[in-house]
Amino acid sequence: MKIITISREFGSGGRELGKRLAEELNFDYYDSEIIVGVSEKSGLDASFVSETLDSFGQDGRTLTFSRTLSTPFRLETSKISLLLKQKEVIEAIAKKGRDCVIVGRNADVILKDYNPFNIFVCADRDSKIKRCLQRTGENENLTERELVRKMKQVDTVRARTREMISGSSWGKPDEYHLTVNTTGFEIKELVSPLTAYIVNFFGRTK
Amino acid sequence: MKIITISREFGSGGRELGKRLAEELNFDYYDSEIIVGVSEKSGLDASFVSETLDSFGQDGRTLTFSRTLSTPFRLETSKISLLLKQKEVIEAIAKKGRDCVIVGRNADVILKDYNPFNIFVCADRDSKIKRCLQRTGENENLTERELVRKMKQVDTVRARTREMISGSSWGKPDEYHLTVNTTGFEIKELVSPLTAYIVNFFGRTK
Repeated sequence: MKIITISREFGSGGRELGKRLAEELNFDYYDSEIIVGVSEKSGLDASFVSETLDSFGQDGRTLTFSRTLSTPFRLETSKISLLLKQKEVIEAIAKKGRDCVIVGRNADVILKDYNPFNIFVCADRDSKIKRCLQRTGENENLTERELVRKMKQVDTVRARTREMISGSSWGKPDEYHLTVNTTGFEIKELVSPLTAYIVNFFGRTK
Repeated sequence: MKIITISREFGSGGRELGKRLAEELNFDYYDSEIIVGVSEKSGLDASFVSETLDSFGQDGRTLTFSRTLSTPFRLETSKISLLLKQKEVIEAIAKKGRDCVIVGRNADVILKDYNPFNIFVCADRDSKIKRCLQRTGENENLTERELVRKMKQVDTVRARTREMISGSSWGKPDEYHLTVNTTGFEIKELVSPLTAYIVNFFGRTK
């Protein structure tokens, strides 16, 4: 079984890249499906699950010294329990034994015993803003300033969550097999070179 | 003409990767040849050239407030003039119009108008130490501790020199097309996947 994980900066096009790679390689593809899985497992609404998992959470100090069930405390405990559910969902995906691409959710850390091929996708700031502004969807009414703020927030949460799970640094190139810079590219242009790399990579380990 | 530039952390195996890629692709290969070129151009001994280019240099402050031709001042001016000579040597390589791989020396920055394919090679600390200890050559009598110190020094000089030349960050993944982590690999295992990526990359821009 071959697993490809994609971690990515907000706006870098990593999700599109993951989707296109899965199509090209004829692999299963997982992204929002994971949130749905956590929602089903926890009996909680999918948007609550998504918001909680992508929230800041609190640092250890707050958790230790919090004496009442204050909102930050509750948020933190929800986040931790949902992260555990999410881990189960991701492990269940791997146990299916089918080749797949998993976008985000620290699947590279959770599935490390399966020897996945781990990609980090980045781009320079201007290129990420441009990509976001071109995209339709939940961000389409944001101003550039709001977008930059969101970009920073999302990436900070991703970094903190990874640190919480693994103690390792998000986006540090020696944590991934390959770090791909999408600046100046249409995502589809990267599919063919990356596929070639990946096929050769998995060929090597066979 | 296709140019591949390799920037790398000390001990990551970047030079070997560059050499093997050049062999695989049948490209010219440049590494110490550049120092020889600078030596010839400047009439200075190659080891002096190499030491000066790979020395720390001083920060702007020292340069500004230095009132006598102190050693740091002289080192700094030598470094700058040798960097300019080095730039000429690298530009002359590109003007030959032949496909080539250039290791180090900020060729990615100097030759950016030629649209080179820029690779950064990294590895985790343990893997770099292991690789250095296995290598014969100038480092073979260093203790692990001395090696770690050298590793840090060399990378710091590389980072500072790049910043001096381009104002941009050394090793930051959005400065390169691809960042390759060699941890856990024999360098030769990476040649085939990378070649596949590169061939596809250059195919795209034709």
